[in-house]
Amino acid sequence: MRQAILNLEESKIREVANAGMGRGDVLPFWFGESDEGTPEAVRAAAIASLQAGETFYSHNLGLPELRQAVADYASRLHGPVAAERIAITSGGVNALMLAMQALIDAGDEVVAVTPVWPNLTAQPLILGARLRCVALQPQADGAWTLDLPALLEAITPQTRLLVVNAPNNPTGWTLSRAEQQAILARCRETGTWILSDEVYERLYYAGGSALGAAPSFLDIADAHDRLVVVQSFSKSFLMTGWRLGWLTMPAAMTPQMGKLLEFNTSCAPVFVQRAALTALAQTEAITPRIVAHLKGCRDTLVPLLQAVPDVQTSSAPGGMYAFLRIAGHSDSLQLAKRLVAEAGLGLAPGIAFGPEAEGWLRWCFASKDVGRLAQGVQRLERWLAAQR
Amino acid sequence: MRQAILNLEESKIREVANAGMGRGDVLPFWFGESDEGTPEAVRAAAIASLQAGETFYSHNLGLPELRQAVADYASRLHGPVAAERIAITSGGVNALMLAMQALIDAGDEVVAVTPVWPNLTAQPLILGARLRCVALQPQADGAWTLDLPALLEAITPQTRLLVVNAPNNPTGWTLSRAEQQAILARCRETGTWILSDEVYERLYYAGGSALGAAPSFLDIADAHDRLVVVQSFSKSFLMTGWRLGWLTMPAAMTPQMGKLLEFNTSCAPVFVQRAALTALAQTEAITPRIVAHLKGCRDTLVPLLQAVPDVQTSSAPGGMYAFLRIAGHSDSLQLAKRLVAEAGLGLAPGIAFGPEAEGWLRWCFASKDVGRLAQGVQRLERWLAAQR
Repeated sequence: MRQAILNLEESKIREVANAGMGRGDVLPFWFGESDEGTPEAVRAAAIASLQAGETFYSHNLGLPELRQAVADYASRLHGPVAAERIAITSGGVNALMLAMQALIDAGDEVVAVTPVWPNLTAQPLILGARLRCVALQPQADGAWTLDLPALLEAITPQTRLLVVNAPNNPTGWTLSRAEQQAILARCRETGTWILSDEVYERLYYAGGSALGAAPSFLDIADAHDRLVVVQSFSKSFLMTGWRLGWLTMPAAMTPQMGKLLEFNTSCAPVFVQRAALTALAQTEAITPRIVAHLKGCRDTLVPLLQAVPDVQTSSAPGGMYAFLRIAGHSDSLQLAKRLVAEAGLGLAPGIAFGPEAEGWLRWCFASKDVGRLAQGVQRLERWLAAQR
Repeated sequence: MRQAILNLEESKIREVANAGMGRGDVLPFWFGESDEGTPEAVRAAAIASLQAGETFYSHNLGLPELRQAVADYASRLHGPVAAERIAITSGGVNALMLAMQALIDAGDEVVAVTPVWPNLTAQPLILGARLRCVALQPQADGAWTLDLPALLEAITPQTRLLVVNAPNNPTGWTLSRAEQQAILARCRETGTWILSDEVYERLYYAGGSALGAAPSFLDIADAHDRLVVVQSFSKSFLMTGWRLGWLTMPAAMTPQMGKLLEFNTSCAPVFVQRAALTALAQTEAITPRIVAHLKGCRDTLVPLLQAVPDVQTSSAPGGMYAFLRIAGHSDSLQLAKRLVAEAGLGLAPGIAFGPEAEGWLRWCFASKDVGRLAQGVQRLERWLAAQR
C-alpha cells in the first residue's frame, strides 16, 4: 500500500457515528444529509426507466438531454452556460476527483481554504500534490470569515490549483462577490486553476440572485477561464444516495474529461440520469420548498443554541449546518463522543474538517421534523447543566 | 490541463462507432456489451428499493449483506473468501482505478499484459506511473498465447504492480493454472502486487471448475498475498449500465479502500446494491443461461468467420469476443471505418487495445439474436468479395 493512502485520516465523523451505532436513543445530526427522502416524482422517473429496460452503458459525459437540461438550469442561475461545458458525474465527490485528476500532477501545489469537507483536502494528497491550507477565521459572534489578503498572498505562480467550497461545509461561510472577483483576478495573474465546490449554492438564505443562489464563480468568470465548478443533485433535490453530480468547465476541457470519466466510472446509470431530468424539470416545485424548510430549521436551531449558556454560534448565510463551540471544551472529538454516549446527541467534531476547527461541532439541521432540533438542544442543555 | 491527460488516447472504438452514429443500417458489434437487458427480477429489486425510499448514503464499502453475499458467491467459485476482503464499487473500471490509487505512486513501474482493454493501461498513466507492456503472441491458428518467460523476466523488484486481464479482452486468451502459479511465485519473490481483472471469469467455455469459472488467482493465492481481484456485475448478470463491481483484497487493505471509496464516489446507490443482491441470489437461474447462450454465439460466429477466405480467427476459451484478422488489411482503424461505411458492419479496431493488436478486429458476439451474427458475416463476406 502507498504511504500516502495509509496516511489519509479516516473520517472522524464516522468515528463518532460508530460510537453511537445500534443505539436507537441517539438523535443523529452528524452526517451532511437530510433525513427526508427523494421526492416521489423523481423516484418514479427512475422506476419508469428501469421498467423500460434502460440498463445499458451510456455516453461518458452523460445523456445529451441531461447535459442540456443542466446547462439550462445553470444558465437560469448564472447566465449562459453551454451544454458543451457540462459533464455528468457519479456524485459531487466524483466530480471533484475527476477535476483533480485532470489538473494535478504529483508534486503540484494546491491551496485549499479550510476548514472544509475532508474529501477536498484528501483528494490532492491521493494524487501526490503538496497541500497548503489558508484558514478561515472565527469571529467573536461565531461567524467565520476569509482573510482575503492571506489567501491572495498564498496563491502564487507555483499554485496549480485553488480549492474552495462556498457556501462552506462546515462553517456556512459564503464567498462574497467582491471576494470572488479578487480571487479570480489573482488566479488569472498566476495561471492558477480554481476548483469551486458550489454544491450548497441553493441552500443560501441571504437573498442573492433572483433564484436564491449564493454568489458563484460562474456569475463572473468567462467561459474560457481556468475554472471548474462542481455541483451535485444531493442537496437541492434530496438525492444524496443516487450519486449524481456535474462539472462545469471550459468547453475545451470537456473531451479530456470524457476520457477521465471512461477511465474512472465509464458513465452514470441511465435510470439515475432519468431521475435527474425529472428533478430539474420540477426544480421550481422541489428546490424552493427544500430551501424554505432548511431556513426554518436554521432559524429554529440557531436561536435555541445561542440561548444555551457557554454556547457560541452564528446564523450562517448558507449550507445546512450550525457550527458551534462550547466554552471549556476544546477537544471536539472527545466532546462529540461524550455527547453521543452521555446525552444521546450525535454531532460531528470540528477537527474532522481541519485543525482550525478544533473545539467546534457541526450540527446538520436538515431535519424533516423541526421538533427534533429542539429536542437535541434540550439534550445538550441538560448535559451541560450536569457538567456544572 | 495535465500533459498526461492530454496524452491519453481517446477510444478508437468510439471513433469507429461515431462514424456509424445515426446510421440505422449498421450492425453494431463494437462495444463490449450484450444487447440483452437486465433480467426482470433484478430490475424489480431496484424498483422495490426505490419505492421503499432507499435514497440515502450507504456504507463506503457497500451494504454488509451484499458484501457477505459476494463473499459467499466467490467462496462457491474459489474456496473461502471472507466478507472482510470485499468492497463494493461503482463498476469494474472504478474497482480498477481504486486499486491503482491504493498501490501506485507517481513514478512507480507497472507491468501490463497486452493487448488489453485500454482502461487498464490508461489508469497507471493517469496516476503518473511508468508502464511496461508484455505482449501476448498470436499463433498461426489465430489464438493468442502468453510468452511466460518474457513476463517473468519483466517482473522485477522494481515492479510495483502487475496488471493482467484473463479471460482477456480482446483476445479471449485465458491464463492457465500453471501460468498463474508461476506468476504468483515470481510476484512473491519480487514483492509485486497483482491486479487481476477477472470480470469475464464466468464467460468461460473450456470446462474449468464445477461452476464453470476460468482459473482465478483466488484459487491459488493466500488471503494475505499481494493480490487484488476485480469483478463486475456487468457480464455475468447483464448489468452493464448499473455500474456495479467489487474488489477482493487482503483484509488489512479493506479499511484503506474504504477511505478511497469515500474520496472517489462515497458509495454505490443502495437501490443498485439491492438489485445486485437479487442477481446473486438468482445466479443459478441467470448466469448459466447467459454463458450457454454466449457459447452458442461463439460457436455460431467463429466457424462462419473461419470459412471466409483470408480471415484468420480462433475459438477463444473465454470472454465474449471473436478476434480476427483479414489478410491484406493491416490498418485496423481504417479497416473498421471502411466496414462501417461500406459494409454496415460495426467492429472494434485492434489498435484500440495496443500496438500488438494492429491489423486485428474485435467482434463482440454477445447478441440476443444469433441470426445477427450470421448476417454480419454475410456483410463481411460480400464486402471482401467486392474488394477482389
